Amino acid sequence: MTTVGIIGAGQLGLMLGEAGRPLGLDFVFLDPGIDPPASRVGPVLNYAFDDPAGLARLAEASDIITYEFENVPVLALAGIDAAIPVFPPALALEKAQDRLAEKTLFESLGIPVPAFRAVDSAADLRQAAGEIGLPIVLKTRRFGYDGKGQFVVRTADDIDRAVEELGGQDLIAEQWVPFEREVSAIGARSRSGQIARYPLSENVHDNGILSQSRAPADDAELREAACRYLDRLLESLDYVGVLALELFVVDGELLANEFAPRVHNSGHWTIEGSTTSQFENHLRAILDMPLGDTGMTGYSGMLNLIGRMPADCGPLDTAPWHLHDYGKAARRGRKLGHATVVTDSHADRETAMSAMQKLLATGENPDRS
Amino acid sequence: MTTVGIIGAGQLGLMLGEAGRPLGLDFVFLDPGIDPPASRVGPVLNYAFDDPAGLARLAEASDIITYEFENVPVLALAGIDAAIPVFPPALALEKAQDRLAEKTLFESLGIPVPAFRAVDSAADLRQAAGEIGLPIVLKTRRFGYDGKGQFVVRTADDIDRAVEELGGQDLIAEQWVPFEREVSAIGARSRSGQIARYPLSENVHDNGILSQSRAPADDAELREAACRYLDRLLESLDYVGVLALELFVVDGELLANEFAPRVHNSGHWTIEGSTTSQFENHLRAILDMPLGDTGMTGYSGMLNLIGRMPADCGPLDTAPWHLHDYGKAARRGRKLGHATVVTDSHADRETAMSAMQKLLATGENPDRS
Repeated sequence: MTTVGIIGAGQLGLMLGEAGRPLGLDFVFLDPGIDPPASRVGPVLNYAFDDPAGLARLAEASDIITYEFENVPVLALAGIDAAIPVFPPALALEKAQDRLAEKTLFESLGIPVPAFRAVDSAADLRQAAGEIGLPIVLKTRRFGYDGKGQFVVRTADDIDRAVEELGGQDLIAEQWVPFEREVSAIGARSRSGQIARYPLSENVHDNGILSQSRAPADDAELREAACRYLDRLLESLDYVGVLALELFVVDGELLANEFAPRVHNSGHWTIEGSTTSQFENHLRAILDMPLGDTGMTGYSGMLNLIGRMPADCGPLDTAPWHLHDYGKAARRGRKLGHATVVTDSHADRETAMSAMQKLLATGENPDRS
Repeated sequence: MTTVGIIGAGQLGLMLGEAGRPLGLDFVFLDPGIDPPASRVGPVLNYAFDDPAGLARLAEASDIITYEFENVPVLALAGIDAAIPVFPPALALEKAQDRLAEKTLFESLGIPVPAFRAVDSAADLRQAAGEIGLPIVLKTRRFGYDGKGQFVVRTADDIDRAVEELGGQDLIAEQWVPFEREVSAIGARSRSGQIARYPLSENVHDNGILSQSRAPADDAELREAACRYLDRLLESLDYVGVLALELFVVDGELLANEFAPRVHNSGHWTIEGSTTSQFENHLRAILDMPLGDTGMTGYSGMLNLIGRMPADCGPLDTAPWHLHDYGKAARRGRKLGHATVVTDSHADRETAMSAMQKLLATGENPDRS
């Protein structure tokens, strides 16, 4: 039996465990939380993510280690027994943890990005505004997620307040992009260098949190460009595992926003919508198994269940929906689960998505009335 | 959280747990075995299946109870706290445990069966041979599985030996049927009476053990008849859960062989090959959730992995294969796992199945050479 150690025991860890069980894999998690979602698929070592004692115990219990979120301290990983492989590689983690390093990497690989500048002060931001133009999105360089640590600077009057609000941390000013759509390109690269890419997913955010994904985002040209960028990232980082690249579509062109060195919320539809899920392919990649087919079985739509779960088995009432309940206590703004639908046509997907959104908004199932 | 108690913690229990986790269900198992497959998806209470103390503890830990094999003593179930629902119903278990009651039930429902007679002695068998004609399959009425407890009586000379071999138990003589094919009809019925049926599966046995299933078994007329029989069974038993009806195809007509009041090996392909797996629909049925769509996403083929697992990740090398490793120690004739392929065409499935059979037979992957 191979045991996979996972840093973090949230829903991504849970779904990695769900995908890995049929492959005969065992799991062990490191997480400071009480009764985290992944505790249902393996034992959890209760330590802070950077506690050397916890990491040592994880390494002892694991044949290989991976992580389910990108805010793992790189130095903590460096302390793990060198005999235990850790994937994705630390270099990817380093780049993903710092928006300046990330954007600079994109640029160096010829991947288009919105204009950006490092910012340490209001003076820097004023200069950036002069060069890039307003609006600008001021962001912390580190530890931002789900729209946290961001400030949109619309006029010169916002500059001081923005720096004050986010100040005391390294910042980056990014050109505010009037994007038409957001898409993500998810791919896996195995230890042998095999690459598999999923069809593009189109994503909708709500208050900075992903609320909907649809795949495939039918656009052959965009897909080709995104795959090219994805390949460059995967190769340049000597990457192993699943990686998600988030992109803006502006005037029909792609601009890279950020990447996540892990399985990604915008790829949850792959569980039912693709031959092999992103979770299974992440495991195959790090264990150097052949990657599974990423072909689609239909038109997929995914809705995050945020703040509250639908009453009873709501999403199951409309036949083609698949419910994923992470087993978390309800809390405002918290991702509690998701539901995925796979249909034979684009139109059917939209009908199903609308009905489900209505159900989630009202707590009533339109098919039942 | 709802906790489902399952009597038996083999691979069927494991796959019920794998299907139920995303639905937010917790599981607890009753099984006398050491480290049984389902121990990976929930705690196992180590008691004999009919130990009242074990059943009491299971009932205490569960909101609802089901079982993963049909040899659970009906009397043991009757002892469970009446406040805890147990599905499928005891009546179905009773009928399935006795081949004579089962065949009589089929007949009473107008479901065609091979001719049969109860047999208690060599004299009875001789009389049955006179009435039905030879060959006859002599079977124990109870506790047979995977071809065990059967004897084919080809000539009058076999009669004494057959009765001697199987004697001391209630027996049934069944007409030996020169079937062209074996198919199974799998359906689910929920507590509200909703019924869902899967496409027919065509099955191949090897030494009495299922070795291959293919779905759909494309034959509209057969499917219609099988669904009719399935519905009659489900309704007459006031059944709740998944039920598998095994049938012979003889001269283009169906003859019922037996039914299993549980998820079934010939339905394992539904995990990847159908929108909703038999495991998820069993859980939905007993919890009275709406049943999930049983439509297919392509042509499915399933191969049991018996006696030994393929070397390394063999089945994964051919892209569309999905491996299920039950985590059991290897032993001759033991079901250790299965692999499922889903393809866009009948021809592709056959190519994939042939390649995989060759791989399993030789331990070499033809695509790798």
